Amino acid sequence: MGKVFRFERKTNGLQKINMRDIVIGDSNFVVMAGPCAVENREQLISTAKCVKESGSHFLRGGAFKPRVSPYSFQGLGEEGLELLNEAKKETGLLIITELMDKSDFGLIDRCADIIQVGSRNMHNYSLLKFLGETQKPVMLKRGYSATIEEWLLAAEYIHIYGNSNVILCERGIRTFDNTTRFTLDLGAVALIKSFTNYPVFVDPSHGSGMRELVGPLAKAAVVVGADGLLIEVHTDPDQALSDGKQSLSCEDFSRLMDELNPICSLVGKKLM
Amino acid sequence: MGKVFRFERKTNGLQKINMRDIVIGDSNFVVMAGPCAVENREQLISTAKCVKESGSHFLRGGAFKPRVSPYSFQGLGEEGLELLNEAKKETGLLIITELMDKSDFGLIDRCADIIQVGSRNMHNYSLLKFLGETQKPVMLKRGYSATIEEWLLAAEYIHIYGNSNVILCERGIRTFDNTTRFTLDLGAVALIKSFTNYPVFVDPSHGSGMRELVGPLAKAAVVVGADGLLIEVHTDPDQALSDGKQSLSCEDFSRLMDELNPICSLVGKKLM
Amino acid sequence: MGKVFRFERKTNGLQKINMRDIVIGDSNFVVMAGPCAVENREQLISTAKCVKESGSHFLRGGAFKPRVSPYSFQGLGEEGLELLNEAKKETGLLIITELMDKSDFGLIDRCADIIQVGSRNMHNYSLLKFLGETQKPVMLKRGYSATIEEWLLAAEYIHIYGNSNVILCERGIRTFDNTTRFTLDLGAVALIKSFTNYPVFVDPSHGSGMRELVGPLAKAAVVVGADGLLIEVHTDPDQALSDGKQSLSCEDFSRLMDELNPICSLVGKKLM
Amino acid sequence: MGKVFRFERKTNGLQKINMRDIVIGDSNFVVMAGPCAVENREQLISTAKCVKESGSHFLRGGAFKPRVSPYSFQGLGEEGLELLNEAKKETGLLIITELMDKSDFGLIDRCADIIQVGSRNMHNYSLLKFLGETQKPVMLKRGYSATIEEWLLAAEYIHIYGNSNVILCERGIRTFDNTTRFTLDLGAVALIKSFTNYPVFVDPSHGSGMRELVGPLAKAAVVVGADGLLIEVHTDPDQALSDGKQSLSCEDFSRLMDELNPICSLVGKKLM
Repeated sequence: MGKVFRFERKTNGLQKINMRDIVIGDSNFVVMAGPCAVENREQLISTAKCVKESGSHFLRGGAFKPRVSPYSFQGLGEEGLELLNEAKKETGLLIITELMDKSDFGLIDRCADIIQVGSRNMHNYSLLKFLGETQKPVMLKRGYSATIEEWLLAAEYIHIYGNSNVILCERGIRTFDNTTRFTLDLGAVALIKSFTNYPVFVDPSHGSGMRELVGPLAKAAVVVGADGLLIEVHTDPDQALSDGKQSLSCEDFSRLMDELNPICSLVGKKLM
Repeated sequence: MGKVFRFERKTNGLQKINMRDIVIGDSNFVVMAGPCAVENREQLISTAKCVKESGSHFLRGGAFKPRVSPYSFQGLGEEGLELLNEAKKETGLLIITELMDKSDFGLIDRCADIIQVGSRNMHNYSLLKFLGETQKPVMLKRGYSATIEEWLLAAEYIHIYGNSNVILCERGIRTFDNTTRFTLDLGAVALIKSFTNYPVFVDPSHGSGMRELVGPLAKAAVVVGADGLLIEVHTDPDQALSDGKQSLSCEDFSRLMDELNPICSLVGKKLM
Repeated sequence: MGKVFRFERKTNGLQKINMRDIVIGDSNFVVMAGPCAVENREQLISTAKCVKESGSHFLRGGAFKPRVSPYSFQGLGEEGLELLNEAKKETGLLIITELMDKSDFGLIDRCADIIQVGSRNMHNYSLLKFLGETQKPVMLKRGYSATIEEWLLAAEYIHIYGNSNVILCERGIRTFDNTTRFTLDLGAVALIKSFTNYPVFVDPSHGSGMRELVGPLAKAAVVVGADGLLIEVHTDPDQALSDGKQSLSCEDFSRLMDELNPICSLVGKKLM
Repeated sequence: MGKVFRFERKTNGLQKINMRDIVIGDSNFVVMAGPCAVENREQLISTAKCVKESGSHFLRGGAFKPRVSPYSFQGLGEEGLELLNEAKKETGLLIITELMDKSDFGLIDRCADIIQVGSRNMHNYSLLKFLGETQKPVMLKRGYSATIEEWLLAAEYIHIYGNSNVILCERGIRTFDNTTRFTLDLGAVALIKSFTNYPVFVDPSHGSGMRELVGPLAKAAVVVGADGLLIEVHTDPDQALSDGKQSLSCEDFSRLMDELNPICSLVGKKLM
């Protein structure tokens, strides 16, 4: 590993990405929480408030949703972005949301502090090249069947076109065992941290598909060296329009943040 | 299987797609052959002539290439499309080529008779919706880690937006065993043929990554019920800019076409 | 591939295994059919008669069954072997049955013409060494997650201890897609035939888990170069104690044998 | 999950297994360390001393080795067991070693405090039934391609035949990505701990195949709820006859034990 990659050698310390008062990378541990999909004003604002109160730094929430079935809820689109902007103003949280199509970039750029490239678009090289020509911070989720090398090369697409604000996010890979929705590959996180200077996040919600496993895997992410977490939180998980089974309630999320604190301290990271 | 799908039930026989004098589906067996990537005029024209002579109905060749590494040859782009047009005029072959980005649709539409959506874009739902709003025939390759259900739902994205000219193409899936590049899933072909009326093609070149296996797997595709083949042919495989190891030479291709003929006859298909 | 293997180079033609009037390997195509498990006298004898009548050369049937759950039917054991012996006398069919434990070898040796090592015991190196010290023909099924190299090295365990009567059997591998029970890897069959001289069989029943796919995959096995088939047949598939969904009825099996005949002829093999 | 299993519901607290002064399960965190294979007296005794000194409770070491290739070192066999006995006397460490064949049980029983069933024998139901009829503590490693359900059902084979001294060990699963040797499935550990009362161990050495990842994954195992670790340690990893790349040196192991201590404390476990 390593020899095919030109960028992001571990030569000059961890890549830091500064947004307002938040620094990703360095010795910070950054949490991004919120619903899978933006559903309506009440759901979004109340979730934003609860994750803010528990110490989340970012609000996550999808306005454009890449759904496997065309018959599933496809997201609120532009209306969803307006609600994210509203939540941002009301809570002061930074925003991360997904871009599926470069023609939506203008809209999303006005709302998002970080643009997410989802697992199913990790191989969408047109999109990666396009984002490489911007300076927007990009969180590149691992394709659920991408090797570590393919994932790092996808990151290099963004780099080589001029944008070094790249954050990686491990979110589980597809294996023969469907008991859990995906299998979180924490060895990949430790490996990538050992020879690149990318900030690496972990998404234990997609990485398991079961809310009971989100807490244990979130803690494990801290000790293997991750720089932050992406967590699905919903005010009423059982009524969520997507991914309810893997969403934490506000109470669960608050408890998890309390439990993460001493683990972050132990490994020399600052959660808040 | 089957209950989540609304389109393409086996109610009114196989979907047929007519292009000039070629009918895909029905009792025809259609072959599309050519280089992985369009490299230059001489390579393309000479390959086009050789596949035409051996009985191929279509010329395949990529002008826009989705490559895992940004340092690999990315295709000739617009120049490649011009060469495909030239080959079309010179040989009379129909053209299939890949669209990666909807902003290139106009260019590709003027050249291609069928637009290919590659394995890495099967989950690019923005692209699928866009193609659903055209009437262009689309060959939708299976994502190399897509379940059969995910693949059929991707096809429904195109359908539901209004375009029923959809051809599926099995091209191998990723498994634990990397001895062959991918593992061709011929059971999936037989299964899909048993309860849908999509034409289904097979790509034994990507499905194995080894030219020695292309012939045996091409024959197997015929007997499991495929409607055609997508095969990589190069006038000088060892010098190919991409996928040389899985490309047939013109001589190999000619021999394979001769061998496919009696097998097609045996299963009641006409190779032409 | 190939460099780590010492035995079975393609130096002196296909390995032939002679049993009574049957020759495995060479230009013969040999069919072994019968129930997954021996259940009772009536079931076994009537199935044996029907597969004999349709042209099967061997009766398959498990007396000792390696079941994933301890609560599933574990096979009739010694009583099952007696029934197999009875079926053998009555029909003249040769017998193939599975050995799970070397302490049962004596019992099984008196009944079986070929001993099967099942997929879950392919890595049971104690068993392989033991069989290597006999001269009994062994059919070594591929571990459902074994690479081609691991499978060939398992075969070398038998060889190196002195027994060259080894037949391989591809029976499907485990992948991310559970739509079919396993994914039949016909590329592996073509690859192994290209550089070894092992006879290679295919089991389309386990390789798909769906009786609708057994026929198409059986035919595909012929054209990729297999030397024979292992097929589950049951007089009343829906009442089978194991694997009913993948078992053919006697009528289905008879029809399949008729369809295989011209395909075998086409590739220069003799089915009967 | 859960409905097909009869044993080991979370009804009466964690299953405890007592051996001399060590209790597995409960609030203890137990470490088993040593070489992959017993190679010679000096290697074994010096490794035993170093792991003892650093706080390991058990010495691990294989005398009978299930090797993929018949040309690889197969273990010292009976001589290896004698060396393990010698190391036991000299250091007071308890012993865990692998049984591949029930005919070796007597020999191994006199040496081992826990018998290991390796990943490749998890499906060896004859062996499981045999061990079920003893009262010997058994560590059942997960088959590297076994689903969680198949693994728990394998454990029930031991239970149902009368032996409840079963410990599970997650050791990595095989996926499409071969960058790491296996992919450690820590979500499976958290899941199994949530609804059964089996003690669950983790083997980060096999689970990654890279010594650089053993530390991070060992720590992650603690926080997801594991009851102990199985770790490969060698006095001279680069000279090891097997698995050297994943073995820690004595110094690395000592440092890791120091780092595990505060993490165990944080989750309320006693490393001792």
